[in-house]
Amino acid sequence: MALIVQKFGGSSVADAESIKRVAKRIVDTRRAGHDVVVAVSAMGDTTDELLDLAGQVAPVPAPRELDMLLSSGERISMALLAMAIHSMGYEARSFTGSQAGMITTADHGSARIVDVTPVRLREALDDGAIVIVAGFQGFNRDTRDITTLGRGGSDTTAVALAAALDADVCEIYSDVDGIFTADPRVVPLARKLERISAEEMLELAANGAKVLYIRAVEYARRHGVLIHARSTFTSNDGTYVLGEGMTDPRQNSEGAEMSDAIGMEEPVVAGVAIDRSQAKVAVVGVPDVPGSAAAIFTLVARTGANIDMIVQNAQSAQPGRTDISFTLPKQEAVEVVKVLAAEQESIGFENLVHDDQVGKLSVVGAGMRTHSGVSVTLFEALSKNGINIDMISTSEIRISVIVGENDLDEAARAVHTAYGLDGDVEATVYAGTGR
Amino acid sequence: MALIVQKFGGSSVADAESIKRVAKRIVDTRRAGHDVVVAVSAMGDTTDELLDLAGQVAPVPAPRELDMLLSSGERISMALLAMAIHSMGYEARSFTGSQAGMITTADHGSARIVDVTPVRLREALDDGAIVIVAGFQGFNRDTRDITTLGRGGSDTTAVALAAALDADVCEIYSDVDGIFTADPRVVPLARKLERISAEEMLELAANGAKVLYIRAVEYARRHGVLIHARSTFTSNDGTYVLGEGMTDPRQNSEGAEMSDAIGMEEPVVAGVAIDRSQAKVAVVGVPDVPGSAAAIFTLVARTGANIDMIVQNAQSAQPGRTDISFTLPKQEAVEVVKVLAAEQESIGFENLVHDDQVGKLSVVGAGMRTHSGVSVTLFEALSKNGINIDMISTSEIRISVIVGENDLDEAARAVHTAYGLDGDVEATVYAGTGR
Repeated sequence: MALIVQKFGGSSVADAESIKRVAKRIVDTRRAGHDVVVAVSAMGDTTDELLDLAGQVAPVPAPRELDMLLSSGERISMALLAMAIHSMGYEARSFTGSQAGMITTADHGSARIVDVTPVRLREALDDGAIVIVAGFQGFNRDTRDITTLGRGGSDTTAVALAAALDADVCEIYSDVDGIFTADPRVVPLARKLERISAEEMLELAANGAKVLYIRAVEYARRHGVLIHARSTFTSNDGTYVLGEGMTDPRQNSEGAEMSDAIGMEEPVVAGVAIDRSQAKVAVVGVPDVPGSAAAIFTLVARTGANIDMIVQNAQSAQPGRTDISFTLPKQEAVEVVKVLAAEQESIGFENLVHDDQVGKLSVVGAGMRTHSGVSVTLFEALSKNGINIDMISTSEIRISVIVGENDLDEAARAVHTAYGLDGDVEATVYAGTGR
Repeated sequence: MALIVQKFGGSSVADAESIKRVAKRIVDTRRAGHDVVVAVSAMGDTTDELLDLAGQVAPVPAPRELDMLLSSGERISMALLAMAIHSMGYEARSFTGSQAGMITTADHGSARIVDVTPVRLREALDDGAIVIVAGFQGFNRDTRDITTLGRGGSDTTAVALAAALDADVCEIYSDVDGIFTADPRVVPLARKLERISAEEMLELAANGAKVLYIRAVEYARRHGVLIHARSTFTSNDGTYVLGEGMTDPRQNSEGAEMSDAIGMEEPVVAGVAIDRSQAKVAVVGVPDVPGSAAAIFTLVARTGANIDMIVQNAQSAQPGRTDISFTLPKQEAVEVVKVLAAEQESIGFENLVHDDQVGKLSVVGAGMRTHSGVSVTLFEALSKNGINIDMISTSEIRISVIVGENDLDEAARAVHTAYGLDGDVEATVYAGTGR
């Protein structure tokens, strides 16, 4: 008998029918003999609707009150889910983030989990009940206020519960079958991965891949939680996300069939991620002296912009000058360009280029540590397809390139093929792919 | 500087515009120098919509979960209201029933308030903040669960807060100007009362008058809370509901103009209430021996029916027999008739009459204690209009009659006139009169 944590997102509980479907899923897990703890998001677009209502009564909603408002969404869905489970004959009890012992910082709208004390949850489990917890929220001990966790909050709630309860697995449900080697809507021959390492998952998520939020994967990695990303619509296995030292749980079953390459070498590249949300800013002809980069990025930091890639070429066209390029979210670029342009004289650069028709393509694989020439495959694939590379940036297990936005999808497919990631059949894509 | 508690119902906060209007009302009160504590209901039809959702996922929703669900409605409205007040430049803090120290029994859906410990509310008031409290809900110390209070819950929340905080007044807002001598939609010449005694209010509310809930008036009476029933749409005074020993606060203002009959005798009759929700059941030809009534009402009690009037005539047509009639809510009559019919032989009655085309008219007035002949005015008015009286029942300050349902409205108007209650102008009735 295992303790399983399950997370269901907004689109999984969008209406009464969906709630009943999810309830049945949960009951099936319980019926198999496991203890079940569920983290659930608000129904469908509830959070956005509440945000909209808030905007109608106040242009800048007070943070404490906004969190009080938004946390109602999860309260509604958790209670309905518990009711549905009850009507199927199983005991279920719902708990708010506060009741579940989810202790957070006081940062309204972006609180971090600092402790989890799931006393009431353990009591409920001991009573044989299925436990439903409101995702996305917690409680601050100092202010005694409800806080919400920001983006990826419900995934993080689930992982935090799994860690605190020492669960055997944390199942994160969405309407896709698992983690794919690429976005199947862009790369039809993308394959579902049987397993992926947490560090590879982090790199993919940080570079455009959806399905799992970075913070949840990071929390899982830090606390040794096994994540299983799977689909609400099938009972097939999804993708296991393995932290350091973890093994695929299916490897332990005697005589269990293993798909993929167990016992063989891990593939060099796990997957390809694309990101169209970035823009590029190039500061051209910067004086190549100490302090130039610092001056530029001090200004940028004041705008609060979230810089992604930074590339400085060793040499510019002119001696004594260099070019510094960086990428950042499109919506933050205009402000940054304005701020830099105002300081052109003091920094001394010659020109400022702002290009928001770019896309970022990333290739991720732990195998890059031990294999050489991985980047060559990427560059050759792009070259063969006549796709120009604008910027290159790498980490230990990732290579990212900036290309023209219009080339991005084609580049993804070409690179996916070049790395031998293509599957035999086109992946099934459900309409309205969401969480 | 006073401490004022204000209650706003669902239709007062039905949408963003209404919420902003109410926020302005609250801010105006604060600006006048008073401390303000607000109890608020869920927006518009939210509670009904949540109930409907619950019914879609479970035929018989688990009570604990249903209360968790329903309490979200007030959470949403209180947070939005606090936000609106903030954006008008005033500090406001919202609190759930639990956070406000509203301690209740564990009866989900019909919890009673057993204690109020408003520690956090006092702290907020000391900080100069306007306090918003979610109506209709509380917290049970033993189960540590959220409970809802049932019908009239938000009015009761407001009165309980006023009692616990020793407020100067509890203002209950609706979209009517106050308590009227009769329902202005039925009796156009009904007048708004300047004041009414709590015991008269209780009798009117118990016998069909809307605007204030019995339990809230009763709680106010028991705890010495002054209620002021007034309109969200005007700043005119409404109706003060005075408990024993209380005086109209306006009497204390030096040189304040007093309307109505201050210093003169109180009117004999305060108002007329009508109730079309009742049906009549007559058990005809019951053996006139000890135990007959007990047998009948023991059976009735088992169905849980809520009996209103009971009348037994001294004599029936036949010697040794009597007739016992009673009224009860229409929807409960069928079950009761079935149960009685099944025991016809053991009780020994001759016939059972079930009439659901009846209406109850009540005349209420503390003056009945000291004046004789009050009933004569009622009976003559009805007689003059050719309206037959089916049952008569009285209390110290109330006379009620059962008449045909089709006669009820005309009877109300005739009786209202006969007691000299008519005003000079037709009362303004706002569309969609609600709370």
